[in-house]
Amino acid sequence: MADKALLKEFEAIVGADNVMSAEAETHAYSYDAAVLDSVAPAVVVRPTETEQLGAITALCNKHGLPLTVRGAGTNLSGGTIPSKGGVVVLTGALNKILELNMDDLYARVQPGVITAKFAAEVASKGLFYPPDPGSQTVSTLGGNVAENAGGLRGLKYGVTKDYLMGISFYDVNGDLVKSGSRTVKCVTGYNLPGLMVASEGTLGVFNEITFKLIPPPQAAQSMMAVFDDVLDASRTVSAIIAAKILPATLEFMDNFTIRTVDNFRKAGLPTDAAALLLIEVDGHPAQVAEEAEKVEKICKEHNAKSVEVAKDAEHRAKVWQARRDALPALANLKPTCVLEDATVPRSRIPAMMEALARISKEFDLTIGTFGHAGDGNLHPTILTDKRNEQEWHRVEKAIDAIFDEALAMGGTLSGEHGIGLAKSKYMEQETSRATIEYSRRMKKSLDPKGILNPGKIISALLD
Amino acid sequence: MADKALLKEFEAIVGADNVMSAEAETHAYSYDAAVLDSVAPAVVVRPTETEQLGAITALCNKHGLPLTVRGAGTNLSGGTIPSKGGVVVLTGALNKILELNMDDLYARVQPGVITAKFAAEVASKGLFYPPDPGSQTVSTLGGNVAENAGGLRGLKYGVTKDYLMGISFYDVNGDLVKSGSRTVKCVTGYNLPGLMVASEGTLGVFNEITFKLIPPPQAAQSMMAVFDDVLDASRTVSAIIAAKILPATLEFMDNFTIRTVDNFRKAGLPTDAAALLLIEVDGHPAQVAEEAEKVEKICKEHNAKSVEVAKDAEHRAKVWQARRDALPALANLKPTCVLEDATVPRSRIPAMMEALARISKEFDLTIGTFGHAGDGNLHPTILTDKRNEQEWHRVEKAIDAIFDEALAMGGTLSGEHGIGLAKSKYMEQETSRATIEYSRRMKKSLDPKGILNPGKIISALLD
Repeated sequence: MADKALLKEFEAIVGADNVMSAEAETHAYSYDAAVLDSVAPAVVVRPTETEQLGAITALCNKHGLPLTVRGAGTNLSGGTIPSKGGVVVLTGALNKILELNMDDLYARVQPGVITAKFAAEVASKGLFYPPDPGSQTVSTLGGNVAENAGGLRGLKYGVTKDYLMGISFYDVNGDLVKSGSRTVKCVTGYNLPGLMVASEGTLGVFNEITFKLIPPPQAAQSMMAVFDDVLDASRTVSAIIAAKILPATLEFMDNFTIRTVDNFRKAGLPTDAAALLLIEVDGHPAQVAEEAEKVEKICKEHNAKSVEVAKDAEHRAKVWQARRDALPALANLKPTCVLEDATVPRSRIPAMMEALARISKEFDLTIGTFGHAGDGNLHPTILTDKRNEQEWHRVEKAIDAIFDEALAMGGTLSGEHGIGLAKSKYMEQETSRATIEYSRRMKKSLDPKGILNPGKIISALLD
Repeated sequence: MADKALLKEFEAIVGADNVMSAEAETHAYSYDAAVLDSVAPAVVVRPTETEQLGAITALCNKHGLPLTVRGAGTNLSGGTIPSKGGVVVLTGALNKILELNMDDLYARVQPGVITAKFAAEVASKGLFYPPDPGSQTVSTLGGNVAENAGGLRGLKYGVTKDYLMGISFYDVNGDLVKSGSRTVKCVTGYNLPGLMVASEGTLGVFNEITFKLIPPPQAAQSMMAVFDDVLDASRTVSAIIAAKILPATLEFMDNFTIRTVDNFRKAGLPTDAAALLLIEVDGHPAQVAEEAEKVEKICKEHNAKSVEVAKDAEHRAKVWQARRDALPALANLKPTCVLEDATVPRSRIPAMMEALARISKEFDLTIGTFGHAGDGNLHPTILTDKRNEQEWHRVEKAIDAIFDEALAMGGTLSGEHGIGLAKSKYMEQETSRATIEYSRRMKKSLDPKGILNPGKIISALLD
């Protein structure tokens, strides 16, 4: 419970209705979607105007209070888990789309706007905002920037950072920093939007974000290819790219995931298949027709048992519902679901699939694998029960082994889930001691008291 | 002339043949393409292995020597002008393409690789590296990253930062920092590639760069539209985008530029036209045919006097040669050529054209305007003689006025030329005091002695 004088200070900024400190209220903000211990904050504040963010940040800095900004709390690496005695700032009420500019193809938004709602609003104006993280129906755009959220369309359309044109944010003193522009080209000063992306709330508190929008593809075609052999499926992925086709989405599901999804929602999936590829090509209608035909041919050349082409919108929706069901279906099976996102160059996916099979066997664990095969970003998902200490120990060993494999293949620890609290101990293995020290010096200069989302990325190593 | 003991130290790193300190040798590295006073460095070193960069940087830091990395020296804002008594590091010998990976669509290069040579090598393997700055035949990829170089394809394909996947660089201690990946998705730690882009050599010395490659468009069609009215031409630009067409290039030339280019190389341009739009659409052949037809129609609806569609490769080359001639032709007219790149949201191009006409008249100056209309990045080019003090004073006032207009229209000081020495005094006007201070704190923590390309961006304000 926070001290009364302090609560008064927060109330003076956001109003008494928007400050919470009772345990029953703060508990809801003590965890996120990562499998990590929860930590209840001392205070939760809910600003209703972005201007209040500056005053909140300055107040936290004055008192040395840890400040964690929280959008929807869907983070998978503990980025939204607050610090003991700290402050959680909710962005839910900062949910205005400030401008959708059709002539200049950009949008300005507050940080609490929900991703899918924004994408739908953009679509209703005839434009396209491609990033589609799995949590898009609840995740916020501020959170997406803080984590550089990815999604299914990464291969062809890129990730959140590829749409970030400008940002304004409050520094620890509560002063407003502005960088980037409403123009595609802007080199006025350091690329601070580039620095804010993936910074996990550790370098500033976002005030307003400018995103690039693009014209939507005119047509799309979805397909489901069924394989008897996981390696045939993963080799197909490389063959499609080698044919110079960049599908909008190119997703993979292994047999375990297929069966679990089919059990979750009777979807009529081929439960005896070793693997499925779910593929969508998009663009000009003529290009879509050609590419769909080529993709079908490539799948068959790689021993696909069948390639089902979606006949209509309903059929297409069914294909993608199966993919979207993967995580909830798997998560339903066991008390604890560890969703990893180690990423490899896509030509190494066959090798990664073999490694995952080996790791699953070695540590006697159930691993369901699905994910964004097209950009090498698989989601091996370990199903377990954290209360089973012996098994949990094996899970930790398996995660280490997955990271070792990904790095040995020229990949990365995290494609889209972030480092947060969960992976900071692995950072040096992928980068270098000098990288950690460089980041540490930068962080320290921009947040001398270490109040901005402490412990995330490399902050745990701050002296 | 640098002190002999110091020269010995540099010679120990790169060999005696690769250290220059005689005035006759250092003079060549005292200026770049900006209209600014030259400053000769004390020492010029030419490393032949990237590993030597770390030792050179550490040595400069030990002695507090200003270090300026120089690629081709084509910088337009003074970013490559060294500091008095400083060291220039030439990257010309660090020109290896280390890997072109066709399966995973990336390339790894040393910083001194020449842009056009790289693009050609990529093209020869059937892939595409889109960034095409005007200086591409001589500019280096390291310089392109340091400046976030743009070019003609910014609207549809983005700029250098959109292709930067990973980078390793030496910090001031000479230690190697690594960030980013060979995968499209990577959120392992701070986005240091994003921070390095446009940092103008002030935060680290680049060692190796990883770029994203994409499949090339299958077809392209070039067109030249002739207008009697500048505003008709500039309104056509917005109308094309409003029709949801993103041309690969959408370039503008005013009458003064047209006449100058035609005089430079008898190209048969319509010298009585008020303005030209040079347009190229690319993609799937069916899409190209449709878009070319639509673009032609839109041009005519906006009173284009004629629209010439390139009939073959030779005709196409002629169209683009005219555009490439714009700067050399203009620069040929007068002793001093000031090439600006203030950028506005593209819907404001008509207003910007009106403002430029007003400014030209008010300050009695010759301004030729051409540039990347599609992304709002015009290049008003002031032709003058710096030795004419009275006129030069008017030039400086005109530049201030151009920046004021661009910022009032929601634009930016610099679309692609950088801040360098030339524009740092305008930075606060576009951003905020807090932005400068934030940048200053960051710079100071990463380069405490201020040795990395001092005076560039905000460094002049370092205390």
